[in-house]
Amino acid sequence: MKWSVGFHRKEKKMNNHYKVNEWSVIEEAFHPEMQEASESIFSLGNGRMGQRANFEEAYSGASLQGSYIAGIYYPDKTRVGWWKNGYPEFFAKVLNSPNWIGICVEIDGHKLDLHTCTLHSFRRELNMKHGFLSRSFTVSCEEGKMLEVNVMRFLSIADDEIGAISYSVKPINFDAEIAFTPYIDGNVKNMDSNYDEHFWDVIDSGAKEGSAFLISKTRKSEFSASFAMKYEVSIDGEQSDWPVELIHNQGFVGNKVKGRVLKGKEVIIYKYVSVVSSMNYPEKDLLESGKKSLERAFNLKFDTLFKNHQEHWEENWSRSDIIIDGDPLAQQGIRFNIFHLNQTYSGRDERLNIGPKGFTGEKYGGSTYWDTEAYLVSFYLSTANEDVARNLLIYRHKHLQRAIENAEKLGFKDGAALYPMVTMDGQECHNEWEITFEEIHRNGAIAYAIYNYIRYTGNKDYLLDYGLDVLIAISRFWKQRVNWSDVKGKYVILGVTGPNEYENNVNNNWYTNLMAQWTLKYTMESLEYAKNNDAFRFKEILSRNNFNEKKEIDNWSDIVENMCFPHSEEKNIFLQQDGYLDKEQRFASDLDPSESPINQHWSWDRILRSCYIKQADVLQGIYFFEEDYDLETIKANYDFYEPRTLHESSLSPCVHSILANRLGYDKKAYELYLRTSRLDIDDYNHEVKEGLHITSMGGTWMSVVYGFGGFRVKDDMIHLNPHLPDQWKSLSFRIVFRKNEIRIHINGSKVVIENEKGPRLEIMLKGKNVIIEEKSSFLQNIEN
Amino acid sequence: MKWSVGFHRKEKKMNNHYKVNEWSVIEEAFHPEMQEASESIFSLGNGRMGQRANFEEAYSGASLQGSYIAGIYYPDKTRVGWWKNGYPEFFAKVLNSPNWIGICVEIDGHKLDLHTCTLHSFRRELNMKHGFLSRSFTVSCEEGKMLEVNVMRFLSIADDEIGAISYSVKPINFDAEIAFTPYIDGNVKNMDSNYDEHFWDVIDSGAKEGSAFLISKTRKSEFSASFAMKYEVSIDGEQSDWPVELIHNQGFVGNKVKGRVLKGKEVIIYKYVSVVSSMNYPEKDLLESGKKSLERAFNLKFDTLFKNHQEHWEENWSRSDIIIDGDPLAQQGIRFNIFHLNQTYSGRDERLNIGPKGFTGEKYGGSTYWDTEAYLVSFYLSTANEDVARNLLIYRHKHLQRAIENAEKLGFKDGAALYPMVTMDGQECHNEWEITFEEIHRNGAIAYAIYNYIRYTGNKDYLLDYGLDVLIAISRFWKQRVNWSDVKGKYVILGVTGPNEYENNVNNNWYTNLMAQWTLKYTMESLEYAKNNDAFRFKEILSRNNFNEKKEIDNWSDIVENMCFPHSEEKNIFLQQDGYLDKEQRFASDLDPSESPINQHWSWDRILRSCYIKQADVLQGIYFFEEDYDLETIKANYDFYEPRTLHESSLSPCVHSILANRLGYDKKAYELYLRTSRLDIDDYNHEVKEGLHITSMGGTWMSVVYGFGGFRVKDDMIHLNPHLPDQWKSLSFRIVFRKNEIRIHINGSKVVIENEKGPRLEIMLKGKNVIIEEKSSFLQNIEN
Repeated sequence: MKWSVGFHRKEKKMNNHYKVNEWSVIEEAFHPEMQEASESIFSLGNGRMGQRANFEEAYSGASLQGSYIAGIYYPDKTRVGWWKNGYPEFFAKVLNSPNWIGICVEIDGHKLDLHTCTLHSFRRELNMKHGFLSRSFTVSCEEGKMLEVNVMRFLSIADDEIGAISYSVKPINFDAEIAFTPYIDGNVKNMDSNYDEHFWDVIDSGAKEGSAFLISKTRKSEFSASFAMKYEVSIDGEQSDWPVELIHNQGFVGNKVKGRVLKGKEVIIYKYVSVVSSMNYPEKDLLESGKKSLERAFNLKFDTLFKNHQEHWEENWSRSDIIIDGDPLAQQGIRFNIFHLNQTYSGRDERLNIGPKGFTGEKYGGSTYWDTEAYLVSFYLSTANEDVARNLLIYRHKHLQRAIENAEKLGFKDGAALYPMVTMDGQECHNEWEITFEEIHRNGAIAYAIYNYIRYTGNKDYLLDYGLDVLIAISRFWKQRVNWSDVKGKYVILGVTGPNEYENNVNNNWYTNLMAQWTLKYTMESLEYAKNNDAFRFKEILSRNNFNEKKEIDNWSDIVENMCFPHSEEKNIFLQQDGYLDKEQRFASDLDPSESPINQHWSWDRILRSCYIKQADVLQGIYFFEEDYDLETIKANYDFYEPRTLHESSLSPCVHSILANRLGYDKKAYELYLRTSRLDIDDYNHEVKEGLHITSMGGTWMSVVYGFGGFRVKDDMIHLNPHLPDQWKSLSFRIVFRKNEIRIHINGSKVVIENEKGPRLEIMLKGKNVIIEEKSSFLQNIEN
Repeated sequence: MKWSVGFHRKEKKMNNHYKVNEWSVIEEAFHPEMQEASESIFSLGNGRMGQRANFEEAYSGASLQGSYIAGIYYPDKTRVGWWKNGYPEFFAKVLNSPNWIGICVEIDGHKLDLHTCTLHSFRRELNMKHGFLSRSFTVSCEEGKMLEVNVMRFLSIADDEIGAISYSVKPINFDAEIAFTPYIDGNVKNMDSNYDEHFWDVIDSGAKEGSAFLISKTRKSEFSASFAMKYEVSIDGEQSDWPVELIHNQGFVGNKVKGRVLKGKEVIIYKYVSVVSSMNYPEKDLLESGKKSLERAFNLKFDTLFKNHQEHWEENWSRSDIIIDGDPLAQQGIRFNIFHLNQTYSGRDERLNIGPKGFTGEKYGGSTYWDTEAYLVSFYLSTANEDVARNLLIYRHKHLQRAIENAEKLGFKDGAALYPMVTMDGQECHNEWEITFEEIHRNGAIAYAIYNYIRYTGNKDYLLDYGLDVLIAISRFWKQRVNWSDVKGKYVILGVTGPNEYENNVNNNWYTNLMAQWTLKYTMESLEYAKNNDAFRFKEILSRNNFNEKKEIDNWSDIVENMCFPHSEEKNIFLQQDGYLDKEQRFASDLDPSESPINQHWSWDRILRSCYIKQADVLQGIYFFEEDYDLETIKANYDFYEPRTLHESSLSPCVHSILANRLGYDKKAYELYLRTSRLDIDDYNHEVKEGLHITSMGGTWMSVVYGFGGFRVKDDMIHLNPHLPDQWKSLSFRIVFRKNEIRIHINGSKVVIENEKGPRLEIMLKGKNVIIEEKSSFLQNIEN
């Protein structure tokens, strides 16, 4: 099962813990009971690695220690109540890796620990504009001895092997003996380990004056990673000559430096760390490579490192920022989402993907769900260069053979592929039969992403290079997965779980059947395109996929023409699945608030037989292929399904919000947008401590740009039909579209489109063609 | 999920390991690789306790140590992959209890261990007639030193707190120093412990010359049990004066006695053990009660104890034996089934029930499934006095409050009861949502057992005493579990698993809907009976169940009249569930033998969407209510469903065999009978080492008596329509019916009915009334 959330504004007090600020998330007091949630919210990442906002100094209160390296996982032994044939024996988990941020601090022999010392002031800031985390606090660990502490940390997005910390301590009213122990700790565990196993072995480590390193290797999966640190201590700007004690215990390395600091003087320790892994270097070179990266960082020093990092963030924002005027909550919310998306995935490495919790927690094991294709590709397509989204697609192409093997395990053959529901390395990482084996619509999203990418970029070569291999294998799966029903006189798809995971093992889920039919159609069109445009490579494709053009396509055409689509003529709607109308028909508004979210209050059978919908299902299909349906059909289905939808998945409100916008349901569109935008920052469901809902952040972006912005790409052209909520004075967003970088500004009376970069651009604005020359802008007055 | 087996005679070699003998199971050679299977086959029990046929002496080869006390369980912490709301946090497991059979034997300082010593001959016998286990073997543990060993063991069925062992050793060709260490070992574990926990703590123990005891207490469930032993050693018939060493280690108590035995002389140790528990005595009295029982046994001595035991078995057989002439395999098979049923449940204690593995293994946790009501009540009704089946019914009545609480957890209210799928103490012991929450037809079987009991015994008072409480609560459940479908204009039951567990979360399972409708009807009739026959107690029933006669019954009538029953007019059959005919229709014979049993070869989704049926489903309903259907309907449904049924549950072939008999499908009836009769003894599915399929043994009995015997009870009278397979010369079976004990003998040309005990009896034989006077017999010639 995938992550569930409950959104229940009515009954749940919004969490106002964090200060509203357009560029930052700010905490102005320390609440130990919020620490784990804040550790998630203030997480840092640079696409290559990331970590929760654990404190550098010791902290003995409740905390979820978490430091992660993208792509490094552990195949944990599956734990089930009752084994079912086909379950994976092991599955990959995001791995908590050695902790490299640690700096123990002692003041006159007392350990600095915010759980035991007395805080007088506290401020923490996640600065999203420049991508750093800072803390300032005054504290006394002994009565009357006041200390001022300022900490700043970042994970360089310019040099993604580097992290740096500046940690300053100033005794305010006493002369202090201060000891710093910067360290690397290899003794880490996963909280979600199935059998309480250790996942890492330390294979090498060392400490000398001024530096230390540790190399750890994962069991079974045999990834290794080197963590190397250097540091320097300065007192009042002068380098210290404090004596050094080497620390080299079992899996724990560092230095302890100790000296006196006079009242009012500031001592700063700068800690630099490099993290390199066997993902990018041979294991035998890790020590050397790690040291080299570390030296590079150490020589640049903190300020220059930070400057480079900051410039990179500026560039990120220049392509992806959204400005909402008049609604500070919405402004902070959308930037928080964009910030974390950019932290989680940089698009530089096609072996990586975007996990449900990114670098902010362990939960949900593997890294890749269909969320990537359904909710995230669009964001990266519009806010980064083409390679970023392309790498997400190539990730799946690289896993094609494993998807074929996965399908074979389930009895399919002849090159049919079923991509796993959850994966890290192409193998399935989930073990509920109703999800793993039956939530097969994910295959459709993977095909859709290819279509979406090509529609956006115009790059049809992708079909020849990679796309058709994947499309053929998925189409073969659908072909084998349907069966002919004599009774219905149609092809049916039995025993599936649709996007609405509050139904299991249903027949003819409309969405799944649609994705199957569409994939077959699109694959046939794509084959036709390849045949007509590059006969040589077309033959190559046929040959490498053992594709029998005549025979296979004939079969597909028959399925496309005779696919079963449940519907109700009376209600003029598509039916979510066979028999949906046999259910007792109730609305979300009929639900006693004390029973929601139902996944926390109802037993599973009750959820399954109710008509309640967890997340967009029929509407997800209509959203994907909006152009194929007239407004009346969209309206009838939206009007039927929205009242029955509980949005207990973080991936649901965005789709409904976009459609509500399309239908002119302004109030609903805004209400649904709010549900998605501040989900984490306001911790609607008291679960943020487990990590952030990273993948739903793509949906938030879509609900602004596709919803209120009315942005679409059709026929190689941007279409815009903006419509702002009353609460917003204006909305500006930036879009990368092929060779252009564009800024779109909308307010109640006008739309301004700036062609900031790239050639002359033709856009369809509210149904009318407009042309914007290079580096020009276009203004059109509108009535909102 | 429940136990699955695969029956595939075609491809699987029958196991001829055990010698065919009408009253015994005999092994004439020792095969270490078969030891665990034989430990199951040769298990002993007396209704109160039981154990696998582990060796008394040390055995270092593969073995599953298992000793069990009825009703004593441990609530093991649930283990699942993904938690679902409503799962039980703990569930009861059959508990491996301290091992009391152990006698270590040393010969000239060498441990006797059949895994390391050299065997020259070996014979093991399970004597079913007299209920004992014996072993004889010659062995040498040192080159050239030949030893003869004879062992006999029984668990007294006359005094169910007692077990006794006679263990004789004779050095054939040397003078030997022999040491015996009779012991009790409290250091036992369950193999199926979810978290590898110990379930027992030893709370008291002691050893003195000639005796030892150990009292253990289960964690959490706090059952305690005392194991006390005494022994005596005789050499050539004379009591020995060998010196005794006390053994009293951590959880391990005993005596070690050692002495010389001359060549050709026999030394015998008799070990007597009492097992008493807090089920029957206050914990503080356990030591005393255990000793008292032990003294009782010790004073009677082995031979008298055995004689009493044997007489009890004779009485058992006098009521339950079946004699099949002309088919020794079938003869041994049916006695093996009857023997184990009588070993597992004596019917003396209404807190006990019949677990799927009885006292023969740990698997499947709890003790009670719907098997009891659907497959076992009939056996005990016909072969024991009325109290035995009645106690099985009262067991459920005692759990009524917990069944109501179980339903409440799933959202039901107002006294609705859902009995657990698997239970020990009334609480649910299973955690697959598709079974635990959805296989609700079990409630119907519990109601049916009340009807079956009353039909058989004529004892309608049971309704007033207990039956109606249960029926009302179950009817309330059905009432709440249906919902009205506007589309169908019927009441529907959505999201269930029927008896065919190869379908999950289906709508309108015909069998489930039938059981729901029937229960409502039967409850209404029973209420009417109570009202008309005992107005005072009727009022009591209404009052103690808060029953609103007018309101509740009106509602029920509406459901009874408008229940949805899927069917196919074209095929003139009931449909197993909505949409069954949308599946690809294949036959069991189309299945590649290498893919069967499909539960071991196919992934779960593939099983679910196939048309293949695990066990009787529609046909189970037709079997229960055979009188309601004309032969044409039975035939149409049988002809449709039998070819699609894989019989991969041990509970399936018996029902099909009975119906095949009814339809005159002789060959099929016999083939299906064989599948059930020798399932364990021939270890069709190589899983006997885990334990025997105890509950399916009731089905085997039914397939003989109801199938070939054509035995039914209708309108307070026995009906007989016997029809023997060609392979059988004759069939005789004994039946207890109300005040009569009857012996029925059938062969190809005649039926003889002996009214052995009880008043004048009227019977319907092949549709004709016959009257048999007290102690007389009736003979009728027939054409088979």
